[in-house]
Amino acid sequence: MSYILQHRPLCLASSSPRRKELLQKFNLAFDCYSPQIDEIRKKKEQAESFVKRMAIEKARKVQQSCLNLAKDVIVLAGDTIVFFNGQILGKPKTANHAKSMLRQLNGNLHSVLSGYSILDSASGNEITDVVCTRVKFQKIPLDLLEWYVSTGEPMGKSGAYSIQGQGLILVESIVGSYNNVVGFPIENIISHMSDNGWISYSKKT
Amino acid sequence: MSYILQHRPLCLASSSPRRKELLQKFNLAFDCYSPQIDEIRKKKEQAESFVKRMAIEKARKVQQSCLNLAKDVIVLAGDTIVFFNGQILGKPKTANHAKSMLRQLNGNLHSVLSGYSILDSASGNEITDVVCTRVKFQKIPLDLLEWYVSTGEPMGKSGAYSIQGQGLILVESIVGSYNNVVGFPIENIISHMSDNGWISYSKKT
Repeated sequence: MSYILQHRPLCLASSSPRRKELLQKFNLAFDCYSPQIDEIRKKKEQAESFVKRMAIEKARKVQQSCLNLAKDVIVLAGDTIVFFNGQILGKPKTANHAKSMLRQLNGNLHSVLSGYSILDSASGNEITDVVCTRVKFQKIPLDLLEWYVSTGEPMGKSGAYSIQGQGLILVESIVGSYNNVVGFPIENIISHMSDNGWISYSKKT
Repeated sequence: MSYILQHRPLCLASSSPRRKELLQKFNLAFDCYSPQIDEIRKKKEQAESFVKRMAIEKARKVQQSCLNLAKDVIVLAGDTIVFFNGQILGKPKTANHAKSMLRQLNGNLHSVLSGYSILDSASGNEITDVVCTRVKFQKIPLDLLEWYVSTGEPMGKSGAYSIQGQGLILVESIVGSYNNVVGFPIENIISHMSDNGWISYSKKT
């Protein structure tokens, strides 16, 4: 039995190679645009609200500003933050900054929050949600943290690590969705798209 | 700052491509042998004991039968089972078998147990352990399960799914180590090897 993949035109409003790879696993064809938005948290804005707002703004920005998109395109955006001790840990600016972030996380539990937005350009409907995964770091000796920073992998990564790279050595266990930590909860996103008929696998006749 | 990777000769007693990939992430050089052992659970043998015994037997078999290995080789073996409702779900024999396994797991919680053994040929010391990850499946519509089986991915996989492939769509959340479900808990294995000085990253002078 073989199947044909059908789906609405798809656009990923993100430049994250991890999110691209997650979509590519399902053989989905998509355009990719990197939206420019102000990623500044409002005063007293909850982490969940912030990450959701970022995803919504990214999707809308791409849908409104990319004029060559199909009229019925589905725009997909995500935003991920690492949240520890009431603080958002962004992307490290220097190797020392990365080391200091990793020292904070070392041996402790933190949250990874991914907001996502799936925007149907044809109807204007948006599906948005936030998913939280709890991540427990091992107690890592400082020389191993130094080695990890020297690999360069922490740069450009929220919280200064990549769970699917050599950074896996830092992680003892997780509770929740693994893909949520990688980029976004692709399992939920595919389910929503499937429930709405935006993606389907039909039997070949 | 750059580092030099040094490690004892290493041999992976497994033919699993997933386990190979996990080791390759750390740029480790290793030989690879697939041991032939009887993978039969003894009467009343606990799942944990079984999977640990399998890992130990695989490591010993390779260490004893592969005559061209270095005398100080570290042999690494792993065995993974999917455990649901008191039963071990092995590798599916046919597509229908895969479908029936996935129907059992659908919407439910199961355990993935990986036993591993790290055998130091020079001293005869063995480090062995079993790690358990709890995996919760989404409630997947039957046509999606059928599509998943049609991809061929379930064949050759314990429990008929691959968490790092398109099978990720089945999984709602996990509790524990993700790599444990992929192949073995590489984070623990690297930590043990590092603690014992079998692997080290030294600063370049």
